[in-house]
Amino acid sequence: MMLNKSSADAVAGFQVAGVHGGLKKDGALDFALLVSECDCVAAGVFTRNKVKAAPVLLDQQRLAENPASIRAVATNSGCANACTGAVGMDNARATASLVADALGIAAEQVLVMSTGVIGAHLPMPAIERGVELSSAALSDDWAAAAAAIMTTDTRPKLVSAQVECAGGSYTIAGMAKGAGMIAPDMATMLSVIATDAALELGDLQHALGAATQQSFNRIVVDGDTSTNDTVLLLANGRSGVTVAGAEDLAAFQAALDKLTRYLAQEIVRDGEGVTKFVTLDIVNAATVADAERIGQTIGASLLTKSAFYGSDANWGRIVAAAGRAGTAFDPNRSSLWVAAGESSSQPGLQIFAGGMPADYQEADAAAIMTEPAMTFRLDCGLGQGSATIWTCDISHEYISINGDYRS
Amino acid sequence: MMLNKSSADAVAGFQVAGVHGGLKKDGALDFALLVSECDCVAAGVFTRNKVKAAPVLLDQQRLAENPASIRAVATNSGCANACTGAVGMDNARATASLVADALGIAAEQVLVMSTGVIGAHLPMPAIERGVELSSAALSDDWAAAAAAIMTTDTRPKLVSAQVECAGGSYTIAGMAKGAGMIAPDMATMLSVIATDAALELGDLQHALGAATQQSFNRIVVDGDTSTNDTVLLLANGRSGVTVAGAEDLAAFQAALDKLTRYLAQEIVRDGEGVTKFVTLDIVNAATVADAERIGQTIGASLLTKSAFYGSDANWGRIVAAAGRAGTAFDPNRSSLWVAAGESSSQPGLQIFAGGMPADYQEADAAAIMTEPAMTFRLDCGLGQGSATIWTCDISHEYISINGDYRS
Repeated sequence: MMLNKSSADAVAGFQVAGVHGGLKKDGALDFALLVSECDCVAAGVFTRNKVKAAPVLLDQQRLAENPASIRAVATNSGCANACTGAVGMDNARATASLVADALGIAAEQVLVMSTGVIGAHLPMPAIERGVELSSAALSDDWAAAAAAIMTTDTRPKLVSAQVECAGGSYTIAGMAKGAGMIAPDMATMLSVIATDAALELGDLQHALGAATQQSFNRIVVDGDTSTNDTVLLLANGRSGVTVAGAEDLAAFQAALDKLTRYLAQEIVRDGEGVTKFVTLDIVNAATVADAERIGQTIGASLLTKSAFYGSDANWGRIVAAAGRAGTAFDPNRSSLWVAAGESSSQPGLQIFAGGMPADYQEADAAAIMTEPAMTFRLDCGLGQGSATIWTCDISHEYISINGDYRS
Repeated sequence: MMLNKSSADAVAGFQVAGVHGGLKKDGALDFALLVSECDCVAAGVFTRNKVKAAPVLLDQQRLAENPASIRAVATNSGCANACTGAVGMDNARATASLVADALGIAAEQVLVMSTGVIGAHLPMPAIERGVELSSAALSDDWAAAAAAIMTTDTRPKLVSAQVECAGGSYTIAGMAKGAGMIAPDMATMLSVIATDAALELGDLQHALGAATQQSFNRIVVDGDTSTNDTVLLLANGRSGVTVAGAEDLAAFQAALDKLTRYLAQEIVRDGEGVTKFVTLDIVNAATVADAERIGQTIGASLLTKSAFYGSDANWGRIVAAAGRAGTAFDPNRSSLWVAAGESSSQPGLQIFAGGMPADYQEADAAAIMTEPAMTFRLDCGLGQGSATIWTCDISHEYISINGDYRS
């Protein structure tokens, strides 16, 4: 199974569109619609922030009541519809109703997602225009839709895969947006994934949960967790292939894992102001959960992120961040290596060994740190828990973007 | 009781010095010594990071074994002596021994503190020179000592107070250093406080713990917690005043609280690249611990810090940060106000009301946000828990400082 990166193959029975409804002042695309010609089984994973945006609350309710007859997902950028109270819920419902009317389906069959500024009400005339234009522009081409869900992203994030199994072949395609506010337990990231395979609801939910845990939940851009995080997975069965039984489900999971991991990594690569892509391989922690938390704490540390930006092999900050992760950790049993590149087949240059600086040349470490991608391997020497976290540096550009985001 | 800010009155029986031993390349002061002419009762509060620097481990051991006959505190900047294993412990012990030899006291009577780069060994020739020069330069003047413990601080942090009680008057004086890596549960901050009052060990420890909780543990610069955080309090009794009994102890606590709060706020004001001083009054949270955690999460959020820097009244980011603090929180019961200045006697302009944007003019909020100091009041509407956290913005300058700190 090979990924088709940066574009998405057509998925049987699905059509998409991305248009300018008027939420963004500069005329950029700001409204996306994904429509299935028949009912979909659908699953969702949502932010764990206690402040949940109206579209998150509405989708959770619809997926609880109506998970087997979803027909469309409408997404706007430019406004998060978060911290908007009862008015926000009304606007989220109204968006779904407008889509339902345009497509001749029921409002309960429509999911909605929003991203953008928190605390502003959805400009409903722009939403109306977005629904009108997008429902008239549906096609097989995901490019405009992926562009329409972007906020400070610099490029669309698209991927698809063809999967072969005993019953035939089917397609999975997905898009995502990220940029800032990307953190453990998801982030302001939205993703919609569609497949023309048929799956049982329980299998679909399980597959999405497992895929999310090893992808979107293992990236850190800035440590903030958003009010709007949503990942949706829709299966319409139009390929004629039913995915059931251990072997088929394993193949589906493998494809979905790979696809979501690619989208997650693309979000980090395109993080606000990012100049370095950093892989943190945390190995031999007491538990997998400890390994995740250590990696996430290192990834969210302003001091380590600043050092990545400055190409400074300041490994003491990495070890210090591990020490405050709230997990079991003992510097005297820990060792750290750094290598150039995104992969981690070789541990690379050892820079910390059992509580002490390793014997290495600063120039060798500095040479690795100037690369656009690097991998740190932290061996905690405590147990069998391992996890890989993908993160990035923090640059002057991040501050500029987030200092004037609303202006 | 009035604070004498930015300088420190002489404390009977204590002498101090700050010199250039050679740890800093630019000739700046880098070694400080505080000496009492007689035994002190001493208490300490230390970092909760699992990665504790050698001086922290040594001081914890000495205060456990020998808390009533401390005579000196030696502090170096330029090198943290953290992540340095057994060599680091040997160097910390050797530093104390050099001081003991120079002063004619026992090594067990000397506490040590270090701050600077993590993962480098202490340059012992520079330490030797620092001990030699400082022990020959002891005086009543705290200015050079306060300068010698600085790292990226731009100014020394000094304070003292005269306290009157039934038995007479006594002095408390203290110095601190901070700058970056300042976070909940202390930070890379060092502070030494000396008093010529006499106190029982248990009273002294209790007073320092309580003072630290409402001062150094309520500031956030960048969310990182250091390997070296230390606050020491020494009491030598040379004023002839014994502080005992509820009334005397309350007066001592009040003075110590005020003094530590001033030093803590000075650390935030002088944080790396700081342009805004932000007070977060969290009121009516479920518990005091929840209020602290909500304030600390808001204070550590890169998105809110960037908005402070950009003078953007992006209150949605504040509410969103509260929602991911891991505490009880309900946006629909919450309200938020912002006011100019450091005090919070007036709630100010309401910008969020029970889950919805309040009815206010953006221009009014923007006018407040351009001030060098501002106070947010977040009413959680859940209980009686309140806490005030002091924090700051994040600027381009922070990234520059921490991108090339070691070069």
